[in-house]
Amino acid sequence: MLSDVAALPVRPFAVMNAIGLVAFALVGATKAIREEFDLFGVTVVGLATAFAGGATRDVLLDRVPLALQSFGEIAFALVGVALAVGAHIALDAADEHPVTLVADAIGLAAFATTGAIVAATIGVSGFGIVAVATINAVGGGAFADVLLDRAPFVLFDDFYASCAVLGGLAYWFTASVCARPDAAAALCASATVGTRLVAVTRGWHLPTAQRLGRRWR
Amino acid sequence: MLSDVAALPVRPFAVMNAIGLVAFALVGATKAIREEFDLFGVTVVGLATAFAGGATRDVLLDRVPLALQSFGEIAFALVGVALAVGAHIALDAADEHPVTLVADAIGLAAFATTGAIVAATIGVSGFGIVAVATINAVGGGAFADVLLDRAPFVLFDDFYASCAVLGGLAYWFTASVCARPDAAAALCASATVGTRLVAVTRGWHLPTAQRLGRRWR
Amino acid sequence: MLSDVAALPVRPFAVMNAIGLVAFALVGATKAIREEFDLFGVTVVGLATAFAGGATRDVLLDRVPLALQSFGEIAFALVGVALAVGAHIALDAADEHPVTLVADAIGLAAFATTGAIVAATIGVSGFGIVAVATINAVGGGAFADVLLDRAPFVLFDDFYASCAVLGGLAYWFTASVCARPDAAAALCASATVGTRLVAVTRGWHLPTAQRLGRRWR
Repeated sequence: MLSDVAALPVRPFAVMNAIGLVAFALVGATKAIREEFDLFGVTVVGLATAFAGGATRDVLLDRVPLALQSFGEIAFALVGVALAVGAHIALDAADEHPVTLVADAIGLAAFATTGAIVAATIGVSGFGIVAVATINAVGGGAFADVLLDRAPFVLFDDFYASCAVLGGLAYWFTASVCARPDAAAALCASATVGTRLVAVTRGWHLPTAQRLGRRWR
Repeated sequence: MLSDVAALPVRPFAVMNAIGLVAFALVGATKAIREEFDLFGVTVVGLATAFAGGATRDVLLDRVPLALQSFGEIAFALVGVALAVGAHIALDAADEHPVTLVADAIGLAAFATTGAIVAATIGVSGFGIVAVATINAVGGGAFADVLLDRAPFVLFDDFYASCAVLGGLAYWFTASVCARPDAAAALCASATVGTRLVAVTRGWHLPTAQRLGRRWR
Repeated sequence: MLSDVAALPVRPFAVMNAIGLVAFALVGATKAIREEFDLFGVTVVGLATAFAGGATRDVLLDRVPLALQSFGEIAFALVGVALAVGAHIALDAADEHPVTLVADAIGLAAFATTGAIVAATIGVSGFGIVAVATINAVGGGAFADVLLDRAPFVLFDDFYASCAVLGGLAYWFTASVCARPDAAAALCASATVGTRLVAVTRGWHLPTAQRLGRRWR
């Protein structure tokens, strides 16, 4: 059953997967361009950002990663890399352009959804659904940061990974209540991208233990 | 057979696993608090430290990680995170407090033992048992350091990973000689925690190639 | 079928695997000696450099890593570590000695070949063969760099990973055309080591997006 891809709710998975691949390859390649990597390095970081989350999900759930099996995966990721190179040539400071930020939020939402779909299909626990959704969503960006020798920003940027957690919870809740995977997928994606965009524009923060300590001591 | 959890010597595994989860979540969360992460980041680093070693073990041995399947895993790890936040509020400089050092040694011993138990059950080579025990034991701390963008301390701190290697050897030897998994587990845990605590208090060191070179040239 | 090791073209795999293990353990241990790690750390970095690429390949392709199953793997890697310690004692500045550079190129070629062989045996897509060959070849060096808290040099050194990509393409092409795995293996290894050595001696470079931008704007 673990490798029975046919048991997936195919359409929502395919749509979200394609969106996520293009968006995250664009974001990863843009980061690598800013670091002045050569075009091979830019492509590698773009592909790694696009594939790392899904590959981690598949390895954890004991499947051979999709990216090694299907040609479509690579095609979508290469489109994202090409868009990043084009944006670098067409725009000034493409890496701080709102388009990159929005692409990142969209990729985050799309991959949180694919993670939740696959985990729910395989039948792990509720926590497992939320954990796999989050790992699928933030794995690419975190892996890119490790490749670029930086602390993964997902740990510092408030309300980044948290949005994927919220999305995963939304999927789990909807799937438990009404059992329609496309409704659950839509809600998961909306919850993730919505909270992420609001968090960025509003500058939301979570409390630190230091602040709690100051208040309670 | 690979996924037949029932074939595990259940009691020693469950006890050691619970101890390791609480101890390592406490250690990881304490590190993240020192870096002034927000509470979400503290929880993530705590859970990652608690789960990374066992998840790596399960992925290497071709199993779906326990942490994705069982609710108990999360509960124990969250207890560790809560203890870390409590310790930060109650104690000064909790991260240098002996309690954190002892918790780390206990977690190291507990996870070396769970690694050896699972590897022996699945039937890898003797080196495989020692390697999986070591990876299970040091994986969490090393992953936390990579997340926090530091060189994994397990490579610099003399007699940290070495203690897990000794524990793994003790398990392998005992299991080969007398074939009683609970005796092997007890010996593995004692050897690891014992050498670790002695190494810390005595400041033991291993020689470097530079020192060998100076002596032999 | 995934775990049916007997289906591998055994001889080319075994030869290339042994060469790669000795060469990469030597390179990894040499890096760790330069950082003045103790002998345990040197051994760990050497083993990790030798095993990380193959273990990643096996995990991605849903197999239990060879290194955990066979004693021969460890023996070859320990030979590489011993050679590195010997070279440090016998030579000045062993880490910049041409022997280390050549060993690295040979390991790269050997592991690109083992990756391509295993991936082709399991039957992933053409991209899968190239991707697994590249990951198998550069995984060890990249993992060692992450352990040593540096940005993986494979992303900065022009024509390092690219050589493995060329080798993987050569394997795929040869195996598609003439279906003889030993010819494909020989061509893959020659293409990889040849381009790598020429790239190092000639100082080849790939263009960056910045240069493209300057030219096209």
